[in-house]
Amino acid sequence: MTNRPNVLWIMADQLRFDYLSCYGHPHLHTPNIDALAARGVRFTNTYVQSPVCGPSRMSAYTGRYVRSHGSTWNGMPMRVGEPTLGDHLRDAGARAVLVGKTHMVADKVGMDWLGIDPASEIGVRVAQCGFEPFDRDDGLHPNSSRQQWSAYDDYLVSLGYTSDNPWEDFANSGYDKDGKLVSGWLLENSQLEANIPEEHSETAYMTNRAMEFMEGAIDGDAPWLCHLSYIKPHWPYIVPAPYHDMYGPEHVIDPIRSESEKETDHPLLRAYQNMRVSRSFARDHVREHVIPAYMGLIKQLDDNLGRLFKWMDDKGLSDNTIIAFTSDHGDYMGDHWLGDKDFYHESAAKVPLIIADPRPEADATRGTDNAALIEMIDLAPTFMTALGCAPKPEVVEGRDLTPLLHAGDGFYRRYAISEHDYSSFEMARVLNVAQQDAFTKMIFDGRWKYIHCEGFEPILFDLETDPEEVNDHGQSDEPEHVAVRVRMKDALLAWSLRHHTRVTATRQVLDSQTKATETGILIGFWDEDEYEATAGKPFSSLVAAGPPQG
Amino acid sequence: MTNRPNVLWIMADQLRFDYLSCYGHPHLHTPNIDALAARGVRFTNTYVQSPVCGPSRMSAYTGRYVRSHGSTWNGMPMRVGEPTLGDHLRDAGARAVLVGKTHMVADKVGMDWLGIDPASEIGVRVAQCGFEPFDRDDGLHPNSSRQQWSAYDDYLVSLGYTSDNPWEDFANSGYDKDGKLVSGWLLENSQLEANIPEEHSETAYMTNRAMEFMEGAIDGDAPWLCHLSYIKPHWPYIVPAPYHDMYGPEHVIDPIRSESEKETDHPLLRAYQNMRVSRSFARDHVREHVIPAYMGLIKQLDDNLGRLFKWMDDKGLSDNTIIAFTSDHGDYMGDHWLGDKDFYHESAAKVPLIIADPRPEADATRGTDNAALIEMIDLAPTFMTALGCAPKPEVVEGRDLTPLLHAGDGFYRRYAISEHDYSSFEMARVLNVAQQDAFTKMIFDGRWKYIHCEGFEPILFDLETDPEEVNDHGQSDEPEHVAVRVRMKDALLAWSLRHHTRVTATRQVLDSQTKATETGILIGFWDEDEYEATAGKPFSSLVAAGPPQG
Repeated sequence: MTNRPNVLWIMADQLRFDYLSCYGHPHLHTPNIDALAARGVRFTNTYVQSPVCGPSRMSAYTGRYVRSHGSTWNGMPMRVGEPTLGDHLRDAGARAVLVGKTHMVADKVGMDWLGIDPASEIGVRVAQCGFEPFDRDDGLHPNSSRQQWSAYDDYLVSLGYTSDNPWEDFANSGYDKDGKLVSGWLLENSQLEANIPEEHSETAYMTNRAMEFMEGAIDGDAPWLCHLSYIKPHWPYIVPAPYHDMYGPEHVIDPIRSESEKETDHPLLRAYQNMRVSRSFARDHVREHVIPAYMGLIKQLDDNLGRLFKWMDDKGLSDNTIIAFTSDHGDYMGDHWLGDKDFYHESAAKVPLIIADPRPEADATRGTDNAALIEMIDLAPTFMTALGCAPKPEVVEGRDLTPLLHAGDGFYRRYAISEHDYSSFEMARVLNVAQQDAFTKMIFDGRWKYIHCEGFEPILFDLETDPEEVNDHGQSDEPEHVAVRVRMKDALLAWSLRHHTRVTATRQVLDSQTKATETGILIGFWDEDEYEATAGKPFSSLVAAGPPQG
Repeated sequence: MTNRPNVLWIMADQLRFDYLSCYGHPHLHTPNIDALAARGVRFTNTYVQSPVCGPSRMSAYTGRYVRSHGSTWNGMPMRVGEPTLGDHLRDAGARAVLVGKTHMVADKVGMDWLGIDPASEIGVRVAQCGFEPFDRDDGLHPNSSRQQWSAYDDYLVSLGYTSDNPWEDFANSGYDKDGKLVSGWLLENSQLEANIPEEHSETAYMTNRAMEFMEGAIDGDAPWLCHLSYIKPHWPYIVPAPYHDMYGPEHVIDPIRSESEKETDHPLLRAYQNMRVSRSFARDHVREHVIPAYMGLIKQLDDNLGRLFKWMDDKGLSDNTIIAFTSDHGDYMGDHWLGDKDFYHESAAKVPLIIADPRPEADATRGTDNAALIEMIDLAPTFMTALGCAPKPEVVEGRDLTPLLHAGDGFYRRYAISEHDYSSFEMARVLNVAQQDAFTKMIFDGRWKYIHCEGFEPILFDLETDPEEVNDHGQSDEPEHVAVRVRMKDALLAWSLRHHTRVTATRQVLDSQTKATETGILIGFWDEDEYEATAGKPFSSLVAAGPPQG
């Protein structure tokens, strides 16, 4: 063990901020996550940098906005050379280890240009978004573009769950009332018991794998960050017993929606409402059928975290491990007549974030809430600080949360940003939007949520007077709304013009430029006297090194 | 030889667009460059993407805006993995060869992360901005941060010009009237004869080296692009005989400036005027002393190009070689009371561009002018097309000029962009501007030039009514100016929000995403019927590959 803490960074997938009892859910009791909040800080205004898995995660793993790392959609390879949290931590002598999902796809073209062998240690790391993969599993069909046969598939086969696709046939399918094995991808099957005992499910498996990593690292020399990245409660919505029938329609909270939303004349909002998944979740019977399974998956996750935290206590790891718990985005679940994610209402863009820091400096904040405007990219610099890595403001765009954990000053954010690329959506074709123009950007100041929709009018919500976000003021003539739109657009321009790619501009590089007169580049001097008066040294001091020796 | 043409891409450094006779200079006759224009197209509205060497060149060599590649200032390493013109050409089986200056600095940190040996073939190429370096020479003091002892230094020593810094002591110094060797960096020495015969000067040497490369490549299998990149007429302003006294004050054209410009209340413009180099060139005696040397350097360049073009004719290379001639930025030379470059008036941001395409398709445009709004980043895609490389719109932001060369349709640009990072300037400290805010951006529509100055009011010139750009309408209350500023700011936002880093998003990648139902990711289907109605195939067709074999 080192004197630096370790970090366990737990990420759920597609977990809404409000489906935990500590975030106010009336029926879904999550005592283990609540207990984590009780020994840490519960952040109540955390926004992801994209309301969809891939780009949100690439932002989380780089500490950079989507517009900066450029991986704007699922399965879009992240360019080789994009600096990751893992790169920074390794520079500081710490490990960054992956257990679970990243959604990363390797940039094979870029790796080939740079002569990087995908099978080499560096090649594997580049393909895993900078992590050292202890166990990578994206929770996908084993011949999808992103996932091959996984270690979890091997695990299932080793237990006798033999199939060409054990992930799907066992962990994500169930038997219907006619005794036929049916897919958990289909919503009608959500209430079936998954065809696997809980202890062999993905959630349990990944929990075990995290323990195995930590057990092996106990005697290691390097501090570590372990990214325990669960696939659930993401699709397919199907859960093993006893969680499959733990909740019923009586536990399903009402959707956040208004009939007036269906009358919007905003083409993009209408197209979102017309998506298949939205039409599904707009139906009450779908919500009542699926949400209980979604709740079961969360309850199962909470139970596994309880098992994990207990094990960490027993191993003496809790005293020296910062634990962060969050999600990569939410899930509409029928709110606003929408399904899945991909837009910016609170149900989709806001996530839970709890950070429990065992160090004494954090004693003052234990069990408190914090309403500061947080971006998911803030975690990377926070973990860098904890693990002894110097700040890299030229690369990392998030802001260190340590002051908030330690009741100190120094954290400030005026606007949170989130971005979305819908170029691969059917609606881009329906709306006749060119591939390069199919994007939206959210900028939120804690009250006003302004959504730039390229090629369309903006959308504006006022969360103070309309916390349910059912009234769009994007085209309102109210002077206040007009003024807010001007201000938010200006703020979006200011953010957008900022340096996002000047990643090699360390303070040292910039300093070396301001001292150009010392390296013999003399611009604008009339004579030696002018040089000497400016540089404060004799002109003759400008000597050359001569030819290389030997 | 192949059936694809070769490309000779000649770049001068710091050559103003109007210091060539074909661009209207009344006293500086450049018959060889004029002859190139007579057999090609002379573009009259070409703008660089940054009015300073390094970032302008990184844009030229990548076909991407400065905000995209991120190397915003001289000497700032260009990040490893940034795709270059050379990478694209090599993919198409063509060579990209460097003879002369690139201003590139390698990203050692990034290379180390990716395990790239700087001495390997790929490492050398990465450090040379994607070029295969036949002869790299940035024209700098041999112990500057960017330049070590060069092949040109070796060449000078081999001829007996022995010194610890032969580049400076011979090629860029002269003997004053007291017989003392003095530096060409100092403006008072500009009229001295450089301490080297013309045939051993940098301009002559690089011309010879280009011939050596082309001679050696004549029997090669691969088509090539040769980037012949001259250091001159960039600083130091000193030129060998007979060019050192070919021009006198009577040949110096009047500066473009107005007394009213000195009364500007714009803090940034005032700070520019207060820079040492501006104060120097604001003095008429400095202009009259230095400009004749600057003109001599250009005349010498033209003579060497005459020698080169004649040699190419003799070798039969001209018939199969597209020749492009341009510059990386201009030089204020006292215009607007400014010196050097670094801002956006025509003297600094506009450059000459001539492209002579020997192919029959270009016959219709020979000897014509073209006033289209061109960006320097347009050359990369133009050369890619010529050398048989498929377009890469996801990476290359410039636009193919081939339609303009071949009198066809398909080229269009509404706005030209240029960017500048002044964070390493003394004036950033004088104005108390933080490092990350010390930037400006130009957007120009062919008439209105709008300059966003972060933290300050914008600057606006109307080149139709004020072609000399001496009246700033950035704070004017005239309704027309107010409306133009709104429009230009909106256009800047639109440009800024565009995808600049989505470099891995090929059409193939995006297509693979729209077919997600084929890879077993099924979002929002209630049952098999709904899937089959949408996907047009049986649900049972979704089969998995099974575990890896062998």
